[in-house]
Amino acid sequence: MLYLIGLGLGDETDITVKGLEIVRRASRVYLESYTAILLVDVAVLEKYYGREVVVADREMVESASDDILNDAQNVDVAFLVVGDPFGATTHTDLVLRARSLSIPIKTIPNASIMSAIGSTGLQLYNFGQTISMVFFTDSWKPASFYDRVRENRNIGLHTLVLLDIKVKEQSVENIMRGRKIFEPPRYMTVGQCCSQMLEIEEIKKAEGEGGAYDEESLAVGAARVGGVSEKFVSGTLKQLCEADEALGGPLHSLVLLGRKTHELESDYVRAFAVDTEVWDRIWKRDYEGKS
Amino acid sequence: MLYLIGLGLGDETDITVKGLEIVRRASRVYLESYTAILLVDVAVLEKYYGREVVVADREMVESASDDILNDAQNVDVAFLVVGDPFGATTHTDLVLRARSLSIPIKTIPNASIMSAIGSTGLQLYNFGQTISMVFFTDSWKPASFYDRVRENRNIGLHTLVLLDIKVKEQSVENIMRGRKIFEPPRYMTVGQCCSQMLEIEEIKKAEGEGGAYDEESLAVGAARVGGVSEKFVSGTLKQLCEADEALGGPLHSLVLLGRKTHELESDYVRAFAVDTEVWDRIWKRDYEGKS
Repeated sequence: MLYLIGLGLGDETDITVKGLEIVRRASRVYLESYTAILLVDVAVLEKYYGREVVVADREMVESASDDILNDAQNVDVAFLVVGDPFGATTHTDLVLRARSLSIPIKTIPNASIMSAIGSTGLQLYNFGQTISMVFFTDSWKPASFYDRVRENRNIGLHTLVLLDIKVKEQSVENIMRGRKIFEPPRYMTVGQCCSQMLEIEEIKKAEGEGGAYDEESLAVGAARVGGVSEKFVSGTLKQLCEADEALGGPLHSLVLLGRKTHELESDYVRAFAVDTEVWDRIWKRDYEGKS
Repeated sequence: MLYLIGLGLGDETDITVKGLEIVRRASRVYLESYTAILLVDVAVLEKYYGREVVVADREMVESASDDILNDAQNVDVAFLVVGDPFGATTHTDLVLRARSLSIPIKTIPNASIMSAIGSTGLQLYNFGQTISMVFFTDSWKPASFYDRVRENRNIGLHTLVLLDIKVKEQSVENIMRGRKIFEPPRYMTVGQCCSQMLEIEEIKKAEGEGGAYDEESLAVGAARVGGVSEKFVSGTLKQLCEADEALGGPLHSLVLLGRKTHELESDYVRAFAVDTEVWDRIWKRDYEGKS
């Protein structure tokens, strides 16, 4: 049996009791490591489980999936995923490969950022499509997210923005020299995300296609959602460009509010405002009663 | 401290290790009982936790919240919620009340239907706003969901439909006689949901406002998501009107596909099709390559 087991979002005790029992008796245990991180190290997991955990990077999951699935018709293999196995990153490829090998599959769900973001107090019913924001470079600033934000905002919905993480990056020099030396991991912050969003808005405006949002659009920055040090900061996109210190370490996410925001939702997130006077002024002007 | 603890979606072992530890040491334990059910009885939970669990119905949570919060400044109170505490049903009221009483609050997230529905193989990124479907009566057929489905489908997105449950209903006779006798609980099935959706489509069409979906729109019926007996059936809305037997007992949910469905998603859900020939024909005609 192939077990896809969600680990939740915080630490080693966020696994479900059912998941933990399977990990402890499985023949092999893998941890998908390239799309999200727990707030604790893999050594902590190994100690807690009393098991060796093989860290599976993207390369391994994509090109060596048969090693992971080896003999899973007969023995139990646990494939651990931060969050939920079918949350932000699905593992459909691995499951389809397992199906084709007649390996039975079972999923143990857990909290995903896609639903735990409800702890901002914003109702999940009012979220539109989720987008992801990648690190821009000087020559690569993909803006396809912009139209999806516009679609959501046109119908009044919130947008969850998931932020890029970079693990096992190689410098150009190291790639050219064939050296398997990796840069330290990078996690996008709410500040970087808001700056990039406003940069794209400037470009779109100059092209006459702006207006999906602006500096004064209200948003909530979220850090370590579901962890014991979970933290929220709310304000305008402009204000949130400077909120990284208040939010603290990774992982960060962002929610851009839609105009269908219910008053109870606003009351709830207002408590996290950088500046409640600014929040109230913009709330009354652009959101209140705009269903 | 007020702890809002998600129980996940299946049975007593779907609680997280962290959640279980809190339940076992809390002064009082409540279970929110009116918006979702676990697939096991409350007696099973009590035995597993080794604790008394007070079942909190809507009346209690809404009008006797101060009893629940009593002395939570000094002792730990666990408020258990099926799924995630901020998933399909938020408990913002209770939290705002606790805040106003200066009671510290902590949330222990868990799987919610809003993210676990990803186990259909449909990518959560491509979901629009979630809707809920209530039981129609002869004189009450609320159709406000229809425009929200249209909004989602206009921009190519999937729609998750959460289905009504009725617990502690009283018959008109028993209400009039003041008798606290309750009808057996009712859980809407995928078949009932699809029939109601097609009924509203007929009405809208007659009014010249139809077309948000039709009998041949593709959808996935889901039963007991996240439980060990999780089951999916995919097909047209018309076909899914007759799929209740295949799906089995409650809880049911439905996903109506958007045209942005990726080929990998279709491959995945096609495996659950009532009739793969019908699925393939409609997929090719209405969905494939329609990003």
